[in-house]
Amino acid sequence: MTAERITAIYHIRDDANRVDARATGIAVEQSVEMPVAAITDQGVLDDIVGKVESVRDLGDGTFEARIGLSVATTGLEAGQMLNMLFGNSSMHPDITLADADFPDSVLKAFGGPNHGIDGLRRMVGAQKRALTCSALKPQGLPPQGLAKIAAQMAQGGLDFIKDDHGIADQAYSRFAERVPRIAEAVAATGNRTVYLPSLSGHLEQMRAQIKICRTAGVKGVLIAPMIAGVATFHALVRENPDFAFMGHPALTGPGYIAPPFLFGKLLRLWGADAVVFANYGGRFGYTPGTCKALAVTALGPLGDLKAAVPVPAGGMTLARVPEMLQFYGRDVMLLIGGDLLSAGDRMAQEAAKFQNAVMKAA
Amino acid sequence: MTAERITAIYHIRDDANRVDARATGIAVEQSVEMPVAAITDQGVLDDIVGKVESVRDLGDGTFEARIGLSVATTGLEAGQMLNMLFGNSSMHPDITLADADFPDSVLKAFGGPNHGIDGLRRMVGAQKRALTCSALKPQGLPPQGLAKIAAQMAQGGLDFIKDDHGIADQAYSRFAERVPRIAEAVAATGNRTVYLPSLSGHLEQMRAQIKICRTAGVKGVLIAPMIAGVATFHALVRENPDFAFMGHPALTGPGYIAPPFLFGKLLRLWGADAVVFANYGGRFGYTPGTCKALAVTALGPLGDLKAAVPVPAGGMTLARVPEMLQFYGRDVMLLIGGDLLSAGDRMAQEAAKFQNAVMKAA
Repeated sequence: MTAERITAIYHIRDDANRVDARATGIAVEQSVEMPVAAITDQGVLDDIVGKVESVRDLGDGTFEARIGLSVATTGLEAGQMLNMLFGNSSMHPDITLADADFPDSVLKAFGGPNHGIDGLRRMVGAQKRALTCSALKPQGLPPQGLAKIAAQMAQGGLDFIKDDHGIADQAYSRFAERVPRIAEAVAATGNRTVYLPSLSGHLEQMRAQIKICRTAGVKGVLIAPMIAGVATFHALVRENPDFAFMGHPALTGPGYIAPPFLFGKLLRLWGADAVVFANYGGRFGYTPGTCKALAVTALGPLGDLKAAVPVPAGGMTLARVPEMLQFYGRDVMLLIGGDLLSAGDRMAQEAAKFQNAVMKAA
Repeated sequence: MTAERITAIYHIRDDANRVDARATGIAVEQSVEMPVAAITDQGVLDDIVGKVESVRDLGDGTFEARIGLSVATTGLEAGQMLNMLFGNSSMHPDITLADADFPDSVLKAFGGPNHGIDGLRRMVGAQKRALTCSALKPQGLPPQGLAKIAAQMAQGGLDFIKDDHGIADQAYSRFAERVPRIAEAVAATGNRTVYLPSLSGHLEQMRAQIKICRTAGVKGVLIAPMIAGVATFHALVRENPDFAFMGHPALTGPGYIAPPFLFGKLLRLWGADAVVFANYGGRFGYTPGTCKALAVTALGPLGDLKAAVPVPAGGMTLARVPEMLQFYGRDVMLLIGGDLLSAGDRMAQEAAKFQNAVMKAA
């Protein structure tokens, strides 16, 4: 019997003469984490210990190691899968988790997005065009202040409005007060704008927040899986198949899990319909190449899983809409926050300009 | 009114002429995340927007920025606090979250360890000596195989035995079958050895696992807070004040949150009685200086919070016991896994040798 395996792909920055030993080290670290010579159980040796499948020189001081990790060790649970893929090896500054190939059983077990890009388009009545989004800010405003801003954005006809990821359940704007009021303000415009409140805390708190969302007629949420814990994220997705889930990149770190893999495969596998990431040319350092690879991965084939819509963000402006549509095509959700918020009284008009620019391009 | 603030300390690797702007950028990113000029609410400007307190040249190409973050924005919730400290800035490869000073209100709100180093010593009947620990491995063994190893370690008189962090709730060794059997084998030795099973999954799953622990007479657990989600970790600590919590470093990353701060303050603030970290000279790259700083921080003053015991690990051996005791002193828990497991039939004797070496040094 041969155990089913995930092929995890690591990039190692080290000398050529050390790299084979490093790859073997990762295979052991990410499985049994003990001297293999001391293992007497043949089943463990055959089916549990990680196996180096190949090591090759990528030519830029980096080596690619492909390592087979036993599916059984993941328990088909999101947190434990992340633990097995990268738990201890994350502490090595010269190792990146670059990618992984998942067998169909793993894809089926986790299930991916409930809606995906097509479902999100249906939610807002869009055809094949790009989607639009803005962010409610600043945190610190009372519920009515945020509701007023949301109303202006919705008047402009935006498809989605998400909470700033810094908006949680703070004393100055409790989730239970804020969400119904904002949802009401958005609905009052008569537009199909979908409001995505930001979840915070642990599973029990997030479940209570989703309950508040349901009562308020809200159809989706924002969540930062690397802060919430990926098991919590995945559980909420499976429990709420009618809800849209937008994944936020908080605490995803400086690229030690390659962004195309983290956003395009992992978060999607666990159920993100949309993945927010740091676009090139904004406040963060992703290159155009990384952003393109991320978008292509999120939209590309992954078993029968639905596609996640890439959401480039982080200091985007109205002026960049044509360029971003050129770069990403129509399968994208453009997120412009601060630039719209800076419009003050003209926010609804600027939001409409953003929406029209995207609709006209379709 | 002046809002209460956490002073977060970031290290920035950038040119001197850019560093003031970078610091201002972090202060905005980690608070309102929008152009400050577009904020009209005076309360938000005064009490919510992050404030640069100082920037200074550390002389090694790195600058220290001290930034006041409003306590109110954290909602006094662990996940949101991490989000406010480092959520988006974690994506900048040239920024490290080096440290933070917490006001007393924050320390009190989170509460820290229920037991701390003194409580762990009482649990195992140790006086002022160092504590000992080993790790149950390899995953893949059935419950009775792990129980046999645990019995040998407990026969040797070790203070603590933790599950390997790769042991979760897998088909080959279900938590519900494994934990009672191992606990029974440990208890049967008549020694005071405390067994720490590894929790996995989300809050609800972990609560069920702790219930199984209670029924089996287990008094503590191992958890990887960066995988579980820190809100989940903190909730479990507060719900189970009689349990010991050992924090595991999986997914703590390549030092982008400085290890002395992450292990010595953050995980302790949220309730870790013991913090496992990668010792120098083992399989990972922490320097002796980082390890010493981590231990000093975990044991040092932090309001009225109990001290967390540092647990240097990652390829430690019996031969290194004297050197490690010399380096860390007595306020430490030494964790030796693979080296004991390699002893095969002589595991109980080797464990006794480890235990005696530590007791004799006291």
